[in-house]
Amino acid sequence: MVNVVGFDIGGVNIKGAFVIYSSSNEYTLKISSKFYPMWLHNPVELPELLEGIIRELAGKNQIDAFGITLTAEVSDAYYTKSEGVTHVLTTFTKMMPRIPKKIISSYNTFLPLQDALDDYMAVASANWVATAMYVGKKFPNCILMDIGSTTTDIIPISKGLPNTIGKTDPDRLMSGELVYTGALRSTIPSITHKVPVQGKPSPISFEKFALVADVHLLLNHITEKEYTCDTADGRKKTRKDALARLARVVCSDIDLLSESEIYEIASYIYERQLNQISEGLTQVLKSREEYDLTVPVVVTGLGRDFLARKVAETMGFKQIYDLRQELGLEGAIASPAAAIALLLAEELKVS
Amino acid sequence: MVNVVGFDIGGVNIKGAFVIYSSSNEYTLKISSKFYPMWLHNPVELPELLEGIIRELAGKNQIDAFGITLTAEVSDAYYTKSEGVTHVLTTFTKMMPRIPKKIISSYNTFLPLQDALDDYMAVASANWVATAMYVGKKFPNCILMDIGSTTTDIIPISKGLPNTIGKTDPDRLMSGELVYTGALRSTIPSITHKVPVQGKPSPISFEKFALVADVHLLLNHITEKEYTCDTADGRKKTRKDALARLARVVCSDIDLLSESEIYEIASYIYERQLNQISEGLTQVLKSREEYDLTVPVVVTGLGRDFLARKVAETMGFKQIYDLRQELGLEGAIASPAAAIALLLAEELKVS
Repeated sequence: MVNVVGFDIGGVNIKGAFVIYSSSNEYTLKISSKFYPMWLHNPVELPELLEGIIRELAGKNQIDAFGITLTAEVSDAYYTKSEGVTHVLTTFTKMMPRIPKKIISSYNTFLPLQDALDDYMAVASANWVATAMYVGKKFPNCILMDIGSTTTDIIPISKGLPNTIGKTDPDRLMSGELVYTGALRSTIPSITHKVPVQGKPSPISFEKFALVADVHLLLNHITEKEYTCDTADGRKKTRKDALARLARVVCSDIDLLSESEIYEIASYIYERQLNQISEGLTQVLKSREEYDLTVPVVVTGLGRDFLARKVAETMGFKQIYDLRQELGLEGAIASPAAAIALLLAEELKVS
Repeated sequence: MVNVVGFDIGGVNIKGAFVIYSSSNEYTLKISSKFYPMWLHNPVELPELLEGIIRELAGKNQIDAFGITLTAEVSDAYYTKSEGVTHVLTTFTKMMPRIPKKIISSYNTFLPLQDALDDYMAVASANWVATAMYVGKKFPNCILMDIGSTTTDIIPISKGLPNTIGKTDPDRLMSGELVYTGALRSTIPSITHKVPVQGKPSPISFEKFALVADVHLLLNHITEKEYTCDTADGRKKTRKDALARLARVVCSDIDLLSESEIYEIASYIYERQLNQISEGLTQVLKSREEYDLTVPVVVTGLGRDFLARKVAETMGFKQIYDLRQELGLEGAIASPAAAIALLLAEELKVS
């Protein structure tokens, strides 16, 4: 039996996964996810938060290893990536010192903690590698689309391994493999600069009056419970408050715009967001000859159905697999954490 | 002698102007400006803040009237415009009850406070009316461009009065008369979705990693002192911190991008912002036959030179006047407050 805790330390959410891998090749998977906008918190809280997640997931079970990945270094809680990687990883150094800690790298390997500190760019924002390597075991040639609260990863997988042009976030942005749009936190001006108001295109305000979570709530893509980030105005996650937030985007309010007029705005924003993701996927497809519309697309993350699947279907892909079938709903929403735990458990089991 | 305090109650800045108008038609003008993001504060603080500004401006001088305009009702501190106008205006009701309070309306009139409460849409976000009426006295046919920290007003003036298609913010957005971009607070994704990185276009993050104030600081358009809003990351207003913020926009940092590469990003964002404002001005020009490139353009606000004048010059306008020459630097930056005070003082002086 091998027990591993996987961590995906994002700048906005911290996700943990606990895997108990039995000798008969069966496993149980338990997930914990905390909304934790890094730049709003004091970094000294981090050890306590991580210990809480470990207790919650593993209880009194023995832990054989920690698998870790992070994207938090991108957040402006840190001045540079170097500072961010160093802070997050050294937070782990003192934690349960006898248990080995392995960090996944963009070279498809697990690095011991000190090696990761020495080569910080190899582990910075490499959480997509974990999911891709896990998915590659089942679908050796496929395109993985992981759409979380914040970002979209579009990862071509060849011969079981991620086959991306970009290895770092800036390079992945450039190659279309990272599309900075997600299921919850995207701001409206990052999706479109105009929306239809009473049939005519209107420019919008740049204020953070609403988030795309309001759009997806109104369009029944997510429930209030799945709206796990803070609202833009600090008000509730109800339909009525979401309507009020979206009306403000064009400097209006719910006295001046009808519900159906606001739904028209929501539908348009959704359409534009699908378009942004399509552009990334098209760029990824164009940059490699070996893929066509017959390649399987594996979708995961909170936006796997209403964003990833929708884009893949619209573009004409024939085979679309939902990673939820493998990892369960919670595992799919926290796929990098689940994938790291499963990959590391398997590695330990074999060795 | 007539003494008037003018207030421009924005959602982000509260500006006050004190005018002492002598019988010989000379005046002195004193300005006070406070950065006060309405949605971060408890509205109960508002009376104290306003009283402080009045004390600072008028001292022991007698005050004959208050001239008031507001845009704060657009901010999400308020659920609807109705709630916002009501709250701001009723804050004034108990304040120095013997002194009359007049609110400027989008029908070019001063309304007594109770009338303004009864017809809240007539006074909502009408601060541009004050500046336009003031400018119209000197330039009866012109185009006024007021570019503040947050927004751009493009107001055609005919026969001394504002001659806009839109009267409310949503309608002015639609007509190009309100362009929601400004000299400090605009977010980068509201200006452009791509920037050049090492010569190639890169998509950007939607996070509030930087503001256009960082761009204008780096390009020497504003000083650290003129950078009056909060920074996006809570760090300093130095050149070095601005570089770090702009690097994050493409998920990079100052270890990975050189200064000149970040300046290339800044210059591109500036160019796109000029383009946004040009589009508004072009729309305003196209919608009325009586204007051509010989009409005077009057520029005011913090962005009057590096944004408004630059756009007007590039479009080929021949006569460009800086309202700073009339109102002084502080008065130009707080032109709605200065204009209201001057207009009301003149009205009281005549009547």
